[in-house]
Amino acid sequence: MSTRLEEIKKTIKDTWQEVLSNNMAAHLVAEGNFDERFYKLYLLETYHYTFHNARNQALVGARVDNQNIHYIKYCFKHAYEEVGHELMALHDLRQMGTQTPVEKFPSPLPETKTLIAYLYHISQRGNPLGRLGYSAWAEDSYEHFGPFLQRIQSKLNLTKAQMSFFVEHAVVDDKHADQVMKAIESYCKTDEDWEAVAEVAVTSLKLASGLLNAVAREYLKLQKGESDRYSFL
Amino acid sequence: MSTRLEEIKKTIKDTWQEVLSNNMAAHLVAEGNFDERFYKLYLLETYHYTFHNARNQALVGARVDNQNIHYIKYCFKHAYEEVGHELMALHDLRQMGTQTPVEKFPSPLPETKTLIAYLYHISQRGNPLGRLGYSAWAEDSYEHFGPFLQRIQSKLNLTKAQMSFFVEHAVVDDKHADQVMKAIESYCKTDEDWEAVAEVAVTSLKLASGLLNAVAREYLKLQKGESDRYSFL
Amino acid sequence: MSTRLEEIKKTIKDTWQEVLSNNMAAHLVAEGNFDERFYKLYLLETYHYTFHNARNQALVGARVDNQNIHYIKYCFKHAYEEVGHELMALHDLRQMGTQTPVEKFPSPLPETKTLIAYLYHISQRGNPLGRLGYSAWAEDSYEHFGPFLQRIQSKLNLTKAQMSFFVEHAVVDDKHADQVMKAIESYCKTDEDWEAVAEVAVTSLKLASGLLNAVAREYLKLQKGESDRYSFL
Amino acid sequence: MSTRLEEIKKTIKDTWQEVLSNNMAAHLVAEGNFDERFYKLYLLETYHYTFHNARNQALVGARVDNQNIHYIKYCFKHAYEEVGHELMALHDLRQMGTQTPVEKFPSPLPETKTLIAYLYHISQRGNPLGRLGYSAWAEDSYEHFGPFLQRIQSKLNLTKAQMSFFVEHAVVDDKHADQVMKAIESYCKTDEDWEAVAEVAVTSLKLASGLLNAVAREYLKLQKGESDRYSFL
Repeated sequence: MSTRLEEIKKTIKDTWQEVLSNNMAAHLVAEGNFDERFYKLYLLETYHYTFHNARNQALVGARVDNQNIHYIKYCFKHAYEEVGHELMALHDLRQMGTQTPVEKFPSPLPETKTLIAYLYHISQRGNPLGRLGYSAWAEDSYEHFGPFLQRIQSKLNLTKAQMSFFVEHAVVDDKHADQVMKAIESYCKTDEDWEAVAEVAVTSLKLASGLLNAVAREYLKLQKGESDRYSFL
Repeated sequence: MSTRLEEIKKTIKDTWQEVLSNNMAAHLVAEGNFDERFYKLYLLETYHYTFHNARNQALVGARVDNQNIHYIKYCFKHAYEEVGHELMALHDLRQMGTQTPVEKFPSPLPETKTLIAYLYHISQRGNPLGRLGYSAWAEDSYEHFGPFLQRIQSKLNLTKAQMSFFVEHAVVDDKHADQVMKAIESYCKTDEDWEAVAEVAVTSLKLASGLLNAVAREYLKLQKGESDRYSFL
Repeated sequence: MSTRLEEIKKTIKDTWQEVLSNNMAAHLVAEGNFDERFYKLYLLETYHYTFHNARNQALVGARVDNQNIHYIKYCFKHAYEEVGHELMALHDLRQMGTQTPVEKFPSPLPETKTLIAYLYHISQRGNPLGRLGYSAWAEDSYEHFGPFLQRIQSKLNLTKAQMSFFVEHAVVDDKHADQVMKAIESYCKTDEDWEAVAEVAVTSLKLASGLLNAVAREYLKLQKGESDRYSFL
Repeated sequence: MSTRLEEIKKTIKDTWQEVLSNNMAAHLVAEGNFDERFYKLYLLETYHYTFHNARNQALVGARVDNQNIHYIKYCFKHAYEEVGHELMALHDLRQMGTQTPVEKFPSPLPETKTLIAYLYHISQRGNPLGRLGYSAWAEDSYEHFGPFLQRIQSKLNLTKAQMSFFVEHAVVDDKHADQVMKAIESYCKTDEDWEAVAEVAVTSLKLASGLLNAVAREYLKLQKGESDRYSFL
């Protein structure tokens, strides 16, 4: 592995530690002050942003200024593999007992929209290689994110069938994670390319942490009866 | 095969006959009044529009209003398979002896731009299923277009290596052609869907015929010394 | 006026003569073989493409690679002035007695879609100055197109209120025409800019002629009872 | 003024108080721990996001699903008026003595990119009325933001010519502010419209506060010699 890739992995690791140590949802889960509505709310927001992942991935390959044939192939292959992953989050939500039809879901929280917005922006207008930075942590999150998920699972006695998105998905993504690292190493040529990957990795992980914070905030409002936006969960 | 698919196949067949009987390039080739510059000019324009095919195909899958998971997967898979096919046309042009670097190629002819424009438009703003109509004839053109190509091959004594785009590609596309027909049958649900496929099939085939006409027009100008735009060929 | 602008004006004039002498609708009108359904069909297609004119004009100004502040201002001002002009075509259609609600209009004819597609394509992906070539003839068409419209008016005894799009609009556009010519002269710097303007002028005028042909074709089908797609007119 | 508009104004006011009381840059300025490099860094990021404001505003009007003629006109008029405002920020930067050419500017900070990304996203894919929520605070910020700017001005002894973006601009925007409020009241019809405006107002103001925080963070790194990314300022 090249030094630059090592640096990116290190940066991602550090960012995970930073975001988890400051994250309200992480504290809430560590302290066990939550019930299944917290998990459902998180699944809902996960459904919302995952809906766009294959789409923004494909847009990178469709750019006229992306002329690296191998990278374009990577983009479409990866987009293909990501199609419909939002349905796993939806499946888990159904397994948790929420039957509200999709059309009646509240729209994504502002923080979820911001993550979605950022991924479209860097996919359509940033350095075409930038989006690899998102995949670099998203496809390999179980190492860092696992303990958080395990606490949720154990506290709520969740079955595997209720955690398909976060658990099975994580295993599938293991292979993806390798491919992402190889892609970064193959396609990044200039300093600007490497910096774009690193910047998108850090920024999108922080925005995902913001999403998690927002889930905790909304959950607390729901718990305290201050809002009924998510009372259907 | 459903009646509606039969109708589309019949419509495509009829359109082929109509366009070939009226096409200036088809007449020129039938009469043998051409040299290798005609073929090179055709390869050049083929290079130009093929550059966009995987891209506009992927854009169909990336649309937020395309929510048929199977069809989205089809779009990204097909986009993946089409990546870089313009390089076959470029390869053939190189085999024909044209070494001009790509950056120095004249921009696409207006008729080529019109075909490109139309495919982006129907991919981004039309009925999402419409683009299948383009694939329906483009992936299965050898039956109708073969005699035209064979006359070029025989007159110019072309080797297989000089016809990779039109010949090898055609064989590869045979499998695609089946997949396209199955896709049309699986994904079209409403009358509007079927009509969109039929309309895009006919319109894009006519625009491709317009491109061929334009190639003939430019070739005749070159032959008569009225233009030096393509004198590098 | 610069020599290059004179050349563009000459090119537009020649293209008008070429398209009008070959146009089926022009012949039909010259021979008087039409009734008001022909005019209504033309208004309908005019409504369809005009709906997109302000939009594609604005997209030129919104491009990140368009960095000429004066030209961007021109684009947004011109877009502003073009907003809602499709309602004039709709108004005239209503004055002609067609009350079918907009949602029930048949979709644009393929040739109309091709014109719309081309204008979006050159606005979003071509040389940013190219779209001035469309305005160059569209805002100054009365000189060439007037006799055609006058024959329609006189044969059908149309009132001013039934011709607001083509007549009043033409007067308003007179000022626009001057502004367009000034814009071309001010913003075109390179050979490529001038060629883009000339190419878009010729190509979009030919596509508009194709639209007119398609109107004639559909009218004849309607007249002969071969199609009921436009029987509501 | 309608109750709903009052509520939006109140929400914006509260958000201002919240963001200013938590903002690192606001604290830094209140305590006077800064020199002119802080102001220059802020001008630089302001230049970056303002570059996109007229563009994303115009995109709202260009949407095919935005069919309110009056609102479309508003969008293009407002886009027209915003064209080139980034040059005021650039002018002020030049007046402060930074002559580095634009092409050599570091790319926008991640927080600046996030604001830009969000504005494109809500303009292109959100409720078309949402972007009015951004204008609602951005065109009327002097009331809340004035004291912050005044402290900068007084500490650095800035002339009017060095504050054209934030001061003159603010005066021009006074008229805009009225127009924005009228636009919100005229065009919002449904609950969803009003909620979109409120959500975009709050979210974009928070993202702008994040941008300001990032400016403070980078300034502190520069001050402590931990980074030379902005040493050209």
